[in-house]
Amino acid sequence: MNPSEWFSEISEQLWPNQCFSLKVKRVLHEERSKFQDIKLLDTYSHGIVLVLDGIIQCTERDEFAYQEMISFLPLCCHPNPKKVLIVGGGDGGVAREVVKHPLVEEVHQVEIDDRVVELSKKYLPFMACGFDSPKLKLTIGDGFEYMKQREGEFDVIITDSSDPIGPAESLFQESYFALAKKALRPNGIICSQGGTFWIDMDHIKSTLDHCRKHFPVVGYGVASVPSYPTGQIGFFIASSNENTKLNEPAKTFTDEEIDEMKLRYYTTDIHKAAFTLPRYAAKKLY
Amino acid sequence: MNPSEWFSEISEQLWPNQCFSLKVKRVLHEERSKFQDIKLLDTYSHGIVLVLDGIIQCTERDEFAYQEMISFLPLCCHPNPKKVLIVGGGDGGVAREVVKHPLVEEVHQVEIDDRVVELSKKYLPFMACGFDSPKLKLTIGDGFEYMKQREGEFDVIITDSSDPIGPAESLFQESYFALAKKALRPNGIICSQGGTFWIDMDHIKSTLDHCRKHFPVVGYGVASVPSYPTGQIGFFIASSNENTKLNEPAKTFTDEEIDEMKLRYYTTDIHKAAFTLPRYAAKKLY
Repeated sequence: MNPSEWFSEISEQLWPNQCFSLKVKRVLHEERSKFQDIKLLDTYSHGIVLVLDGIIQCTERDEFAYQEMISFLPLCCHPNPKKVLIVGGGDGGVAREVVKHPLVEEVHQVEIDDRVVELSKKYLPFMACGFDSPKLKLTIGDGFEYMKQREGEFDVIITDSSDPIGPAESLFQESYFALAKKALRPNGIICSQGGTFWIDMDHIKSTLDHCRKHFPVVGYGVASVPSYPTGQIGFFIASSNENTKLNEPAKTFTDEEIDEMKLRYYTTDIHKAAFTLPRYAAKKLY
Repeated sequence: MNPSEWFSEISEQLWPNQCFSLKVKRVLHEERSKFQDIKLLDTYSHGIVLVLDGIIQCTERDEFAYQEMISFLPLCCHPNPKKVLIVGGGDGGVAREVVKHPLVEEVHQVEIDDRVVELSKKYLPFMACGFDSPKLKLTIGDGFEYMKQREGEFDVIITDSSDPIGPAESLFQESYFALAKKALRPNGIICSQGGTFWIDMDHIKSTLDHCRKHFPVVGYGVASVPSYPTGQIGFFIASSNENTKLNEPAKTFTDEEIDEMKLRYYTTDIHKAAFTLPRYAAKKLY
């Protein structure tokens, strides 16, 4: 393997001694922003790939699975998600999905790194198209600080962040979930990127414990996303409404409606199945 | 990346331009058997790993997910799986799981490569322990030829093979499913390793079509197995009984029973969820 031709996703901190590699056709862009290293790669097998601090954030080939699930799982747990906040999500993919939901009227997004937004507009137009919606208002700033100034505003808050080292670290701490709770309307719902039970079990457990201090209903759902480590990613979901059943969506869609929204991964049945965990993970987390 | 320290699972035929790599502590064994290249590696992150013709077959860390699912999905679709045939499975992992099922009385296994069995006994005792069960009779030979001589014998046939190139190629052809149908008792069920819908959609579709010519009920279930390409593997399951509902197991287990059998992945709820496919895959396959 010639390292000049391959990108290898090595992290001694997050997944030591294993790695996923993609053969690179062309490096489209590389820079160090105020917050992180940003790389855009054109790859043979996965199309355009966004890499932050050496970690794959999304690939053209499978990003839809992640974006649809982190958006529609919380949206469909809510009976009427009119006003939504997206924290992070600078590539635009989550915004693209959230604005599809027919009950969503207003989407506010706060992303810390304007360079990710600018570069996504240039190199990832299939995701950055999310920024074009008239429902969306984008703010460049710190999501943590943004939420401090909000109270009782949002039906759903989605945190689409990188892994909990580097700029996203604060988005997994207990104080973050306390702030999110305060920024929600009554019966509001939050959803955050949640690692994988194959590697991050302790992180998942402690984050769920943080959530439980502020929300009566807390769960962990999963999706298959091949370009993430272990091929899977999970989502922390919590509801302020004690009657919410996470695996029984309040809003269901027919297959025809799913196709009209151009969803390729999410369906009502996928939603119901997403919260079923293997025995060893369920025993550890619940 | 120093190639002498890492094992990289490269296949230009099966998953070009992407690969998964494991850092190797020690190469335990390497040989060329009559059928294939066999490698046993001790790795830092995944324990002992069996590699055939350059492809990871199982790792100590996550093999349970695969073995439990390829065994319990078909077994639990059958109300009374007394007599079971395993084709392949030379590491012993599937045998280990199948003999746990309380209704299984007799397990016949036919593996083509005795060297895989011998090396598993030496290096993979946590799987090869499956061969110790008094319920099991192991034959070294060709599964295809073995089945030609059987008629109406088995309640369940499980094909635990490598990928459909090399020695396992014939196990995915239509004639194989015709033979399996004939070797089954009435209302019998078959299950085969089935690739992943993220890479092998055409192979999955054609194999399902082969199955449909011989079985009235045919489906595709999935499991999360991080050390397989895309982190997921699927299973072809087909029943001779037109009333079988694959996602409603005929035999259910309580969590206590699951724990007694030392299952770490499979549960009755996991079984029900396994057949729910993302919209794009469901549209293509059904």
